[in-house]
Amino acid sequence: MEHQLSHVRADGSAHMVDVTSKDTTSRTSRAQAVVATRPDVVELIVDAGLPKGDALPVARVAGIMAAKRTWETIPLCHPIPLGKITVNFESDAEAGTLRVVTMVKTQGVTGVEMEALSAASTAALTVYDMVKAVDPRAVISDIKVLEKTGGKSGDWVAQNPGDAT
Amino acid sequence: MEHQLSHVRADGSAHMVDVTSKDTTSRTSRAQAVVATRPDVVELIVDAGLPKGDALPVARVAGIMAAKRTWETIPLCHPIPLGKITVNFESDAEAGTLRVVTMVKTQGVTGVEMEALSAASTAALTVYDMVKAVDPRAVISDIKVLEKTGGKSGDWVAQNPGDAT
Amino acid sequence: MEHQLSHVRADGSAHMVDVTSKDTTSRTSRAQAVVATRPDVVELIVDAGLPKGDALPVARVAGIMAAKRTWETIPLCHPIPLGKITVNFESDAEAGTLRVVTMVKTQGVTGVEMEALSAASTAALTVYDMVKAVDPRAVISDIKVLEKTGGKSGDWVAQNPGDAT
Amino acid sequence: MEHQLSHVRADGSAHMVDVTSKDTTSRTSRAQAVVATRPDVVELIVDAGLPKGDALPVARVAGIMAAKRTWETIPLCHPIPLGKITVNFESDAEAGTLRVVTMVKTQGVTGVEMEALSAASTAALTVYDMVKAVDPRAVISDIKVLEKTGGKSGDWVAQNPGDAT
Amino acid sequence: MEHQLSHVRADGSAHMVDVTSKDTTSRTSRAQAVVATRPDVVELIVDAGLPKGDALPVARVAGIMAAKRTWETIPLCHPIPLGKITVNFESDAEAGTLRVVTMVKTQGVTGVEMEALSAASTAALTVYDMVKAVDPRAVISDIKVLEKTGGKSGDWVAQNPGDAT
Amino acid sequence: MEHQLSHVRADGSAHMVDVTSKDTTSRTSRAQAVVATRPDVVELIVDAGLPKGDALPVARVAGIMAAKRTWETIPLCHPIPLGKITVNFESDAEAGTLRVVTMVKTQGVTGVEMEALSAASTAALTVYDMVKAVDPRAVISDIKVLEKTGGKSGDWVAQNPGDAT
Repeated sequence: MEHQLSHVRADGSAHMVDVTSKDTTSRTSRAQAVVATRPDVVELIVDAGLPKGDALPVARVAGIMAAKRTWETIPLCHPIPLGKITVNFESDAEAGTLRVVTMVKTQGVTGVEMEALSAASTAALTVYDMVKAVDPRAVISDIKVLEKTGGKSGDWVAQNPGDAT
Repeated sequence: MEHQLSHVRADGSAHMVDVTSKDTTSRTSRAQAVVATRPDVVELIVDAGLPKGDALPVARVAGIMAAKRTWETIPLCHPIPLGKITVNFESDAEAGTLRVVTMVKTQGVTGVEMEALSAASTAALTVYDMVKAVDPRAVISDIKVLEKTGGKSGDWVAQNPGDAT
Repeated sequence: MEHQLSHVRADGSAHMVDVTSKDTTSRTSRAQAVVATRPDVVELIVDAGLPKGDALPVARVAGIMAAKRTWETIPLCHPIPLGKITVNFESDAEAGTLRVVTMVKTQGVTGVEMEALSAASTAALTVYDMVKAVDPRAVISDIKVLEKTGGKSGDWVAQNPGDAT
Repeated sequence: MEHQLSHVRADGSAHMVDVTSKDTTSRTSRAQAVVATRPDVVELIVDAGLPKGDALPVARVAGIMAAKRTWETIPLCHPIPLGKITVNFESDAEAGTLRVVTMVKTQGVTGVEMEALSAASTAALTVYDMVKAVDPRAVISDIKVLEKTGGKSGDWVAQNPGDAT
Repeated sequence: MEHQLSHVRADGSAHMVDVTSKDTTSRTSRAQAVVATRPDVVELIVDAGLPKGDALPVARVAGIMAAKRTWETIPLCHPIPLGKITVNFESDAEAGTLRVVTMVKTQGVTGVEMEALSAASTAALTVYDMVKAVDPRAVISDIKVLEKTGGKSGDWVAQNPGDAT
Repeated sequence: MEHQLSHVRADGSAHMVDVTSKDTTSRTSRAQAVVATRPDVVELIVDAGLPKGDALPVARVAGIMAAKRTWETIPLCHPIPLGKITVNFESDAEAGTLRVVTMVKTQGVTGVEMEALSAASTAALTVYDMVKAVDPRAVISDIKVLEKTGGKSGDWVAQNPGDAT
């Protein structure tokens, strides 16, 4: 007997796109995230005065490690070798904000925007984890790609990429 | 011979705080993240018309899985049993935004804000990964805790928690 | 201006079900998987004569580790403490089969069927990885729960659970 | 004094084989797994009517993510870059079966059979996790490689690879 | 036909022991590891003058995160909730050594020696990773449990536990 | 209004160094770790007589898997493809020691010392986990790189690399 087989929603379904024929080139991406809290909390962050300890080195390590695990976290990202990762911080005590700026570089077949964004958002979440005892209302915003170079689509700079390195 | 030992920066150093004497109670947390893109992109998301496929089920699964791995990603978070996780979406095509709303519940000794935030930010990043081919300038914002219940500090609601369930 | 918000497919969406009000009881589950290959290959397995080395200890460790990571692999599984895990093997050289039998035990709020199944399937895949150089056509079948005890639904035994311990 | 050193079971021990001198070529592998349940349950799967929600998108994501983590799960597998992963489904309501068909592609030094098999078995286990409330006796069978291309051993097709794409 | 089934090396095989009937009590463990390098390198570590940056905060975070993942790394360890983790350092510039001292605390059913040892060894390996450019011959030694409290076997102190907190 | 931005400790901060312009060459590294216990315990290890089962196959698998996950464990390590991993053991019953000797080989842009060291230390910790019931005072020492080949710095052999293969 011949059963009727149905391809279940095969069209339009999510899948990891084919990158096997893309060129291996040098690619970089910069991204950011901003933690908006109070001026006094920014000072506690900068002066390592928070109850759980010095937040920025912890956030930096968390961001670097998250960038490397992006392909485990974001379902359709490809595993790629990462050649360089930096996570830096800019504080604006007056505004009560801490900006995380990340940079990821690879020799690879895909861009590294997701890796730079993962580093930025994870570093910002780690900062929140360490300030939430003193400011549970802190908000993380403006997570975005600042700049990318390399790859088929060419170089690209956000309109207000800011002055961070 | 007696060498001089120096405790290196032992004070103020980051550490996982002691939760072994905290009570096991029912705790919940709700959090959100907002993806700001263009109206036409929101329609592609809702209609499952993006090049990589149907974004929302992928983002939902990514958010749920990220909540469970929060303690692996955020260095000073405790591993805790999670009893329930939901990840939902609200679209506002006119404004060009997609809002992710998450809820996490536990019987445990710590709050689950970080788990709810991790779910929200990871779901939002997953959406970005799937829309970046059509809108690389999309921005993720307003990642924040909406509400928490249970625990020593009592219940807590953000001032504008929105209407999401 | 009031935008219209749409709850996007909130109904029917996948979610981790709430287990916070379930009782913590002693629960066990046994499961199996069968690798069907050739008689001579079963002998190579049992005699540790495969090119990559002695397969069974590797498969046993892989199964145990996979059981512990079930909640990372199966999206809607809950993270639970596992109290005991065993992975054993029965060979039938005449039939050319190797049967993997697993047992998982917990004091927890959910059953451990998925953990027992993950251990069995991962151990079987590990055996395949080690025999594929000599038999790429080996097939893994009959992955199923043999028995479960504890929990609201009471004890349960498959109709042909086999004689394995 | 000269102690006698013993190399403990160095021969025949499990090890990751050397692939550093193998050629980087385009390699693909297709694999499958079959979930055998009841006709009514297959309809619930296809119609997204299961208690935990819509099973297929969750199983698809789980399969894709499992393929990428194969080298973490199967002890002697090599970490390799994966260029494309698809997970599709065929239902046969009359027979009460759901077939998972996976495809993995790489530019790499090893075949990707294990990655395709891991995707298939994990997607099938995820389906089981979502149907076990209505059919705990469902069985996963016929996990096998359907086809591989590329690499030293040349192309290879299983005798009954089926008609799936 | 009745095939003959053989239980393959079931006796003596590795397994995760049953802890489901053990009492949940407060348990702590302290452990250490010592990095032996040169006096000038110890000064670079303490003064944050190494090429890759400030080693100790990175090593501290690595140690804390490794403690939490002990059950993923050591095959027969049980997943347990960890309530507190600290990683501290003592430098002896004259001797050219850096001592890592860790403490782990839980409310659980097993001791946490392995968690304290994993934290210590991973922190020491991280320090080595950051000094190997200036001293590839650095050696890690004296990884051992210093003290444990709680559990059936009672309290236990190593003969020379040192003076670290 | 122009706020004053402060780059927070950007200099001297930990970062993953850039390897994107380094040559891909064949690189190997050998490392070791030594478990010091009692002569009778070494015999139990070699004869597979320990309470938790046969320690060496478990430690071998744990070491191999840890090598592959080095970049997840050591924060500033790069993810690299590993081409070959071996973990072997030498027992000296008279001295009461077990020596773990590891070898890792890659075609890559960085050395694999950290991978070889991670394999050795994790295998040794796994042995400790299995002997601690009979000897909680066992100590792990002499974790060091024995030899490395390939890369810019050229070949390198430790002064007393021992006779292990």
